[in-house]
Amino acid sequence: MARASSLSGFPEWLPAGRVVEQHVLDTLRRTFELHGFAGVETRAVEPLAQLERKGETSKEVYLLRRLQEEREGTGAGDDQLGLHFDLTVPFARYVLENAGRLTFPFKRYQIQKVWRGERPQEGRFREFTQADIDVVGADTLPFHYEAELPLVMAEALAALPIPPVRISVNNRKVAQGFYEAIGLSDVDAALRSIDKLDKIGERAVAQDLQDSAGATEDQARAALELAGISGGDESVAERVRALGPRSDLLDEGLEELARLLRTAGQAAPGTVVADLKIARGLDYYTGSVYETTLVGHEGLGSICSGGRYDSLASDGRRSYPGVGLSIGVTRLLSRILGNEMAEPTRAVPTAVLVAVRDEEHRSTSSRVARALRARGIPADVAPDAAKFGKQIRFADRRGIPFVWFPGEGLADGEVRDIRSGEQVPADAESWRPPEPDLWPRVVAAVEGP
Amino acid sequence: MARASSLSGFPEWLPAGRVVEQHVLDTLRRTFELHGFAGVETRAVEPLAQLERKGETSKEVYLLRRLQEEREGTGAGDDQLGLHFDLTVPFARYVLENAGRLTFPFKRYQIQKVWRGERPQEGRFREFTQADIDVVGADTLPFHYEAELPLVMAEALAALPIPPVRISVNNRKVAQGFYEAIGLSDVDAALRSIDKLDKIGERAVAQDLQDSAGATEDQARAALELAGISGGDESVAERVRALGPRSDLLDEGLEELARLLRTAGQAAPGTVVADLKIARGLDYYTGSVYETTLVGHEGLGSICSGGRYDSLASDGRRSYPGVGLSIGVTRLLSRILGNEMAEPTRAVPTAVLVAVRDEEHRSTSSRVARALRARGIPADVAPDAAKFGKQIRFADRRGIPFVWFPGEGLADGEVRDIRSGEQVPADAESWRPPEPDLWPRVVAAVEGP
Repeated sequence: MARASSLSGFPEWLPAGRVVEQHVLDTLRRTFELHGFAGVETRAVEPLAQLERKGETSKEVYLLRRLQEEREGTGAGDDQLGLHFDLTVPFARYVLENAGRLTFPFKRYQIQKVWRGERPQEGRFREFTQADIDVVGADTLPFHYEAELPLVMAEALAALPIPPVRISVNNRKVAQGFYEAIGLSDVDAALRSIDKLDKIGERAVAQDLQDSAGATEDQARAALELAGISGGDESVAERVRALGPRSDLLDEGLEELARLLRTAGQAAPGTVVADLKIARGLDYYTGSVYETTLVGHEGLGSICSGGRYDSLASDGRRSYPGVGLSIGVTRLLSRILGNEMAEPTRAVPTAVLVAVRDEEHRSTSSRVARALRARGIPADVAPDAAKFGKQIRFADRRGIPFVWFPGEGLADGEVRDIRSGEQVPADAESWRPPEPDLWPRVVAAVEGP
Repeated sequence: MARASSLSGFPEWLPAGRVVEQHVLDTLRRTFELHGFAGVETRAVEPLAQLERKGETSKEVYLLRRLQEEREGTGAGDDQLGLHFDLTVPFARYVLENAGRLTFPFKRYQIQKVWRGERPQEGRFREFTQADIDVVGADTLPFHYEAELPLVMAEALAALPIPPVRISVNNRKVAQGFYEAIGLSDVDAALRSIDKLDKIGERAVAQDLQDSAGATEDQARAALELAGISGGDESVAERVRALGPRSDLLDEGLEELARLLRTAGQAAPGTVVADLKIARGLDYYTGSVYETTLVGHEGLGSICSGGRYDSLASDGRRSYPGVGLSIGVTRLLSRILGNEMAEPTRAVPTAVLVAVRDEEHRSTSSRVARALRARGIPADVAPDAAKFGKQIRFADRRGIPFVWFPGEGLADGEVRDIRSGEQVPADAESWRPPEPDLWPRVVAAVEGP
């Protein structure tokens, strides 16, 4: 079902794969809308200056240039434009531009393609779809959204044909409050060291904390003790307190973390766990931070990440704090298709192929198809008046479950279930396929290794 | 509802406009799927060489360049890429690449953004959405699809909140057969002259035919007589024959045209008319050609165009003839929103706002919302435990029709219709909003001037 793209990093799917993708997108959208998120789309491009506000990522931007300009050797006629590399930067710009016309807190979802101007290499997507949810407040945003948003994503992901997910959380205030309490003042450097824990191990991180973050041996040991704490209930906070160091910021962070775990434990037991070694994004986020792994596919990395930012956007007069998460849809879909975790019952929407007796009677077949469609039944008419056996094979090759053999009008046809071979009289104005055959469905397979 | 974009040519919509856009896209998709078209998406980029195969349009291509490359001053590392400017070029490439894995005739729809690297100017979109349907055969493709595809579009457009449409058709074989029969050999030049008819008028076109297409005065007069013929029934063919000139190709074209009008007259009376002055695209198309205008908005130009091409793609061994049409969704939507032809019943998906008595009882409100969502009712919880009057105003400002006041559990709440002010006891496990309030709807307004 999946296939190699002809252009590395730009995935495309055959129709069967697209059915699965569309199911994933529809499911996400439905969950987000059930939770009251409004859909927003932003243009694909932003002025380069806007894209460069997040320093490091600017390396991965695709710039746009008009071909004609290039040929004429003229300079860029307007501000240089680049393709957006995520949906957060454009959304922040959208909020600022439309602040006067939006009502806050504003909950939006946004499902769009993004682009990264990477050097082509195996396994790196240069075009992919993200599905984001964010809640943005004007000047203030209550904490409870930090507990609720990961649960929206948990619900959305649980509705997909994938293994269970685990959402790991941490809180910037916990790390910062703890580090400051032990006198480790270069918080960002310490977080960068801790972020290497999975890759280089405890001993190397201890050394790195001393080399890069100016930690003493004791401070490094304490930071590693904090990073070693994880768990799904409020005892996590107790274990941090038991380490000794105290500060107001640490207390605030621990209270938030405990409240998040309590809320999550009620709504989706076992899904959300605290993992205090999570450091990625903590330079940017100011409160809760989230990472999500697919159980049994941890090597895939985080499929849904995000956090709280006290200033998603700011226009001098007001600031707009937000909390949000983003699903890497293409990476997830690529795993679903590559591991055959799910497959569609058919690759075409058609439930009924109306056969054509001879070309003179094509209009009769068209009328039958029209009558079926008018009642919401996807129907197609055979391409030519071949022998009926060939028309049945046409349907069979596409997985179309029913073939309709018209009589003279709408009421005197026969419909054949080509899986069972059973054929019965049918009226195009009343017959319906059984519900599960009406539209293609996506069926979760037994999970592969 | 519409708004000026902050970047000329890159339209964006506020949430209310996006509800209308989503409704348009959903309606198109549903119609296409009811007719058995499979959904396909292609990547946003193509190699420049691929994009340049259609000569003239290459001027409007946006080229991509990695920012890092530009900064390092290195050359393009791989084949130069550009953003696609339509969905036909990428689809032709997709068909060739996947020919062995597709079943023909292959019916696909494709709804995606395209980009044109235009100089920024008023009223020109540089990013817009197209919705295409095509049927592609391997080596052959029966004529009946040329009659059926415009009817699919007619059905899709009739389901949108817009005035009726008129689909005008012509046929390359009619024009070419007629011109050749009267000895006018530069068919393409003659078509280019005829294409100017609406702009410069008959007299100037007669002169242009002589100057540019090498026509005699008599030939120019005959070509203009042909271009003057239009009508919704088969008498069109008779009137062409009455002009005198005959050829096999002309006969074939007239038979096709008559058959198309006959099929259309049965399925959608009054929608499809022949207009023999249509010349645009006839250099590219080889049979039927279509243009669509919105009645009362003819100045908008064609909102849905297409035709038959004997060779959509070819790989040396096989050729892939196709017929298709493309809706300019953004142009249409821009008119819908700009003229307030339609508006959504609300800009957020939420049907029910669950009020919060005090922050200690937020979890009760969350449970109510969860119970409603589990039964497919979009529900949100108030952002904070403000006075109930303020929570009601929060819902009112967003157009959310119902506010839920929870009791101690799920069963003992009250629900208030904030439009009527009526408030009744309700159980979160059984209460439903009336169907029309469940999701936002798009309501067609009385059409503006």
